[in-house]
Amino acid sequence: MSKYSVGIDFGTLSGRAVLVDIATGQEIATSVKEYPHGVMADTFVNGEALPADFALQHPKDYLDVLYYVTRDCVKRSAVNPADIVGVGVDFTACTILPVTKEGTPMCFLEEYRDNPHAYVKLWKHHAAQKEADRVNDLAREMGADWLKHYGGAISSEWMFPKVLEILGTDEELYQRTDRFIEAGDWIVWQLTGQESHSICTTGFKAAWNRETGYPDKEYLGRLDKRLENIVGEKLSTDIKKMSEIAGYITEEAAALTGLMAGTPVMPAFVDAHAALPTLGITSPGKLLLIMGTSTCHILLGEKEIYVPGISGYVKDGIVDGFYAYEAGQACVGDSFDWFVKKGVPQSYFEEAKEQRVSIYQLLDSKAEKLGPGANGLLALDWWNGNRTPYGNSSLTGAIVGLSISTRPEEIYRALIEATAYGTRNIIEIYEENGIPIDTLYAAGGIPEKNSMLMQIYADVTGREIFLAGTGQACAYGSAVLGASGERGYGNLAKAAESMKKVKEKSYQPISENTRLYDKLYGEYKKLAVYFAEGDSTLQKTLRTLKGQNKNI
Amino acid sequence: MSKYSVGIDFGTLSGRAVLVDIATGQEIATSVKEYPHGVMADTFVNGEALPADFALQHPKDYLDVLYYVTRDCVKRSAVNPADIVGVGVDFTACTILPVTKEGTPMCFLEEYRDNPHAYVKLWKHHAAQKEADRVNDLAREMGADWLKHYGGAISSEWMFPKVLEILGTDEELYQRTDRFIEAGDWIVWQLTGQESHSICTTGFKAAWNRETGYPDKEYLGRLDKRLENIVGEKLSTDIKKMSEIAGYITEEAAALTGLMAGTPVMPAFVDAHAALPTLGITSPGKLLLIMGTSTCHILLGEKEIYVPGISGYVKDGIVDGFYAYEAGQACVGDSFDWFVKKGVPQSYFEEAKEQRVSIYQLLDSKAEKLGPGANGLLALDWWNGNRTPYGNSSLTGAIVGLSISTRPEEIYRALIEATAYGTRNIIEIYEENGIPIDTLYAAGGIPEKNSMLMQIYADVTGREIFLAGTGQACAYGSAVLGASGERGYGNLAKAAESMKKVKEKSYQPISENTRLYDKLYGEYKKLAVYFAEGDSTLQKTLRTLKGQNKNI
Repeated sequence: MSKYSVGIDFGTLSGRAVLVDIATGQEIATSVKEYPHGVMADTFVNGEALPADFALQHPKDYLDVLYYVTRDCVKRSAVNPADIVGVGVDFTACTILPVTKEGTPMCFLEEYRDNPHAYVKLWKHHAAQKEADRVNDLAREMGADWLKHYGGAISSEWMFPKVLEILGTDEELYQRTDRFIEAGDWIVWQLTGQESHSICTTGFKAAWNRETGYPDKEYLGRLDKRLENIVGEKLSTDIKKMSEIAGYITEEAAALTGLMAGTPVMPAFVDAHAALPTLGITSPGKLLLIMGTSTCHILLGEKEIYVPGISGYVKDGIVDGFYAYEAGQACVGDSFDWFVKKGVPQSYFEEAKEQRVSIYQLLDSKAEKLGPGANGLLALDWWNGNRTPYGNSSLTGAIVGLSISTRPEEIYRALIEATAYGTRNIIEIYEENGIPIDTLYAAGGIPEKNSMLMQIYADVTGREIFLAGTGQACAYGSAVLGASGERGYGNLAKAAESMKKVKEKSYQPISENTRLYDKLYGEYKKLAVYFAEGDSTLQKTLRTLKGQNKNI
Repeated sequence: MSKYSVGIDFGTLSGRAVLVDIATGQEIATSVKEYPHGVMADTFVNGEALPADFALQHPKDYLDVLYYVTRDCVKRSAVNPADIVGVGVDFTACTILPVTKEGTPMCFLEEYRDNPHAYVKLWKHHAAQKEADRVNDLAREMGADWLKHYGGAISSEWMFPKVLEILGTDEELYQRTDRFIEAGDWIVWQLTGQESHSICTTGFKAAWNRETGYPDKEYLGRLDKRLENIVGEKLSTDIKKMSEIAGYITEEAAALTGLMAGTPVMPAFVDAHAALPTLGITSPGKLLLIMGTSTCHILLGEKEIYVPGISGYVKDGIVDGFYAYEAGQACVGDSFDWFVKKGVPQSYFEEAKEQRVSIYQLLDSKAEKLGPGANGLLALDWWNGNRTPYGNSSLTGAIVGLSISTRPEEIYRALIEATAYGTRNIIEIYEENGIPIDTLYAAGGIPEKNSMLMQIYADVTGREIFLAGTGQACAYGSAVLGASGERGYGNLAKAAESMKKVKEKSYQPISENTRLYDKLYGEYKKLAVYFAEGDSTLQKTLRTLKGQNKNI
């Protein structure tokens, strides 16, 4: 008799559940639902305007989506819930909310209904930059060891800057809050009736590690006297490894989700990380690229190694016994999107319409005809700053080689090539620091859609690239995690080995192209060094003058 | 009783005549006519395809236009032709044609009617690059002194490369040709019945100077044995200063033009140079910018000074007693045009349509609201290579500072600013070499139309800029030259002083803007040096790979 697991994936705009046969990997049923309130960036629930850089969500949306997609998925599958051996959950991160000790979101309380800070601060809520600066500056000043786990600086997106923002804006709300919690961990709490936190979310987003825990009392007290006792009081210290069961479906959750009470629930994954088991990556040497508006580069390593500009590394963060490393490129699909919206002339849209293809398909078909170097262009992929290796969000993009004969598809290809150079740079930095990479794996919104781009990545990096064999790599990976518990495979490596979904067709580097791209990459690297660490003061001057200018 | 002069200006697509009251400067009448064959770049007169980089014209068009516009202008003015004291002519250059000893274009002969090389090679005929390379290489090898008059290299547009191209392609035509002549000089011949060549065309385009004449026999013989005796045999050595009368209107020309036989005709100006007297520039310190698709920078100097990357300097080239210097930017309006055609999204065109303005006006109005530095961008203005100071047509443009929030008007402004930096760079190079510049003067297609651009130029250069007080600065300047002969003012300086047309409103630098642009210009200069003469091999790599690529 078949056994099944369920993966539940919470993305930025919607959530989805997938029910999988754990022996065959067959995706028996899927259900998707958008969050009714979406992302609240400009306007709050009550219609009022939100400050700049806000990105909030409504926790009720998560519950509505959780109950609907799980119930719908189980029902569609016609599987007996008793045959479901486990549930995995992944969520965007760092996406946090303040809750009571019962797990009730503060915004559910009447008195906080109109308080934006009582809602979910989505990962891309960027209003806590000055708080992040303080967190980093003080950590450097005090020589805090944990900072090196995060490439020397943490992001404004993360737990401590966001909590500091709440404390600084509304102390009363801060004091009344019993727990600040990742939305993924909160979902697990809703399913299991007991609070727990995953090593993946806590390690990558809350500056926690197995050896020393959260930043210490002295540091937190100097950051803000009122934060001195936050650990334990408002941040859980019960951190579960991904191999531990977080809890079991409660009777109440069973009624709402269609799952059976007592079904094991695993700790929550950070969404991108959930794709690792989907591709069967449970050992070092295999770099996973999660490619979308930006790209995450996830890798397992055997040793603890400091890598400059890395997003973070967490021991046991994904697979027990390995260090999970994450690096990042801040702008990938975002720069293509910028170009299509801001830089492509109408004649191209008309041509796409005539050919009944999307504008991206048209640009792809034109750009594909250009060999390496044919565009005469080289770009720096810093349209959103640089994450790894420079950790500098103020760096900006560049295009060199423009002439009056430059065509839009040539620029488009240069932007794609630039993101491939950025990935190669990250690979080289991993390797220079003693973490070898043999093969690349890709998942996310881009790889499936753009074979030209994948070939360029293979050529530029000189490495074979495998693609996920499912269009829902995160949800599927959560289902693999769900199958890794006591009633399934017993551990994640076994579950992943058995259930992995990798496309047969891989992208092989074409050696002649790699030879040409070696030269261009060498120039990319020199230009990157020149602007980011070399003699050039250009980027700084541009930033300073732009900052001073009143007309922005 | 009033006296008048006539200026006849031959542009790239049309010719025009203007009849001017030499006392008041009043433009009594103007007449314009397009060349029936326009520019033959793709298709020849017989409908056959032309090779790449060709740009031919039909000399019959010039005659049709000459006779029509002059006759029409004189007739419209209702002036007595006896009161016209002189005629000036200016022409695009180097625009050459092969003719018989009677001045008949070779293409008028039946047997050459279908031979493209028997027609006019327009200034922008660019098919003689390899010939130009040979001319320059040999001159360097032999240490030819004349090369320094042209910033160390002559252009493929000039006389010797074009003549070499004819010789190499059709020796029989070369041998049958009695004279290679600038179209401007040929027009003067048609009017006066006697061949003569102007110092302006010959000095700036045929590597001739007063001291040593054309390149010597040894050099020419080594360039090609068959060229050894071209000087004298096929190139006139009768070179007239701009202060000398070239000849007098013949009876035949009088009948065709409506002018009176015996009216003095001055030597032909290179078109851009004709704008100098229009702005009253007859002494050093005043830099004239002729701004269009590209920009010429013309200046008078007292001493002979070698300026790197200059287009050329000619003693007595414009005003007797001074060295006329010409520098250039290869891409000005061309890069704006590229951007509007290739890089501006449809929404901007729709907005322009709604506001009933042109796309340029829309971009100007948006870009004007940005202060210096507000766009966060810096560009290099090398979309067409760099003329001065690097004399390197392989250099390419660049934009630095791009981000996903970059808007089209910000790029547009960056392109304009880049051309202003390029002009400042030329000013500084003149000054560093001991040729001071106090004030700028502007004429051409752009200044009248774009006040934002002119203010940026004033701010970037920190100098006041005056504009021509007529929309036809070249034709008017030729009329001033026409008024400088024996029956008019007697010399060009007097004529120009009396007849100059400068707008009252000048552009004054705003010191706060200049202070900000000083910083940005400093970065422009550093980036230019880095790419063109510094450690960077990027431009060369891009060029090499593009050149190797078969998919171009």
